[in-house]
Amino acid sequence: MTEIRFWFAPGACSLAPHILLKEVGVASDNIETAISVEGAQFPVGFERINPKMRVPVLSLDGEIITEVPAIATAIAALAPERQLLGRTSLETARVYEWMVWISGSVHGDGFGTLWRPQRYSDDPAAYDGIMRKAREKLTNYYAIIEDRIVGPYALGETFSAVDAYLYVFYRWGNVIGLDLDANYPKFASLGRLLAERPSVAAATAAENIDPHWKL
Amino acid sequence: MTEIRFWFAPGACSLAPHILLKEVGVASDNIETAISVEGAQFPVGFERINPKMRVPVLSLDGEIITEVPAIATAIAALAPERQLLGRTSLETARVYEWMVWISGSVHGDGFGTLWRPQRYSDDPAAYDGIMRKAREKLTNYYAIIEDRIVGPYALGETFSAVDAYLYVFYRWGNVIGLDLDANYPKFASLGRLLAERPSVAAATAAENIDPHWKL
Repeated sequence: MTEIRFWFAPGACSLAPHILLKEVGVASDNIETAISVEGAQFPVGFERINPKMRVPVLSLDGEIITEVPAIATAIAALAPERQLLGRTSLETARVYEWMVWISGSVHGDGFGTLWRPQRYSDDPAAYDGIMRKAREKLTNYYAIIEDRIVGPYALGETFSAVDAYLYVFYRWGNVIGLDLDANYPKFASLGRLLAERPSVAAATAAENIDPHWKL
Repeated sequence: MTEIRFWFAPGACSLAPHILLKEVGVASDNIETAISVEGAQFPVGFERINPKMRVPVLSLDGEIITEVPAIATAIAALAPERQLLGRTSLETARVYEWMVWISGSVHGDGFGTLWRPQRYSDDPAAYDGIMRKAREKLTNYYAIIEDRIVGPYALGETFSAVDAYLYVFYRWGNVIGLDLDANYPKFASLGRLLAERPSVAAATAAENIDPHWKL
């Protein structure tokens, strides 16, 4: 049996692979939930586990894997019959297109610049402008998400790793006040559908976080 | 036979999938090389092909795929025996870990902020600080690349999609004066090795670009 360890921060993008671990039914006592967020206390020795000092991290028999789409790849391989990365090679390309764009654009370029402007300049006078631009980009990115969701799930009738990843940004969109119900109704519906899904409910319970994060 | 169309800009990150198309031996007259870079003229109708207005774009029988790692996924599926995404499921996770990090961090967060600070703020007074931070991040990212290259190829003895992607940043590192020979010798060796590879030489010839781009 594969020895699995997993590091997350509550409600961070690590929620996506946490959901996928619940999807494939990995026994939860194999999931190590040493926790941190940037600025808070990382577990002792975490810099040896991930020198990038970020969550999520998955360890499979001691092999460390980082980056959400790569972790999703490894988790999906634990239960290939679930086809979490799509059912055809075209659908798999589509799943990676979604995940890479979410990782680089929505998370990195959008929320990264909104929540961590200090990563983009050492000059505090620049932060307001960077954060204003971030809001503008996020509005555009959420419109792209809304446009591309086939419904009810991202790819159509079947749940995939994309949905687990989008759920993170359903919550984050709520907390920054994007008003998904009014502006992105398909995305809002997807988020509500996912919140009821057993794997998602199990992951939010394990992380002790609000499933919707509306303020 | 699959109808393949491909859009690139010379020397852009689209060089990576261009190399992979040469690797799998797709007949070059099936490759449409309508070309643009940001700020230059896009082909008429390109906004319908990719509303994100970015290259690369791959079309397989009319299905449009964007994002380098997703396009690499689709190209690799054209020749699964080449194992361009790795030979085991762990190696495949590793390939995606590299590609997603290159896409989001090295390209997006590093070169994106260095070459396109206007995407991060509307205030021109902020651009110097953003570009200075970009240089600092790139120095760190190139050190991570150097540390992680197993050698001679990224994963070890075998060429993979990661190498095609790293080759783009070998050239870009040269042109911004990072002095790879002095500071990142494994990466410099990999770049020289790749420049001689038939698929890479064919792609740089087709794009009419310098294989090393040293100024």
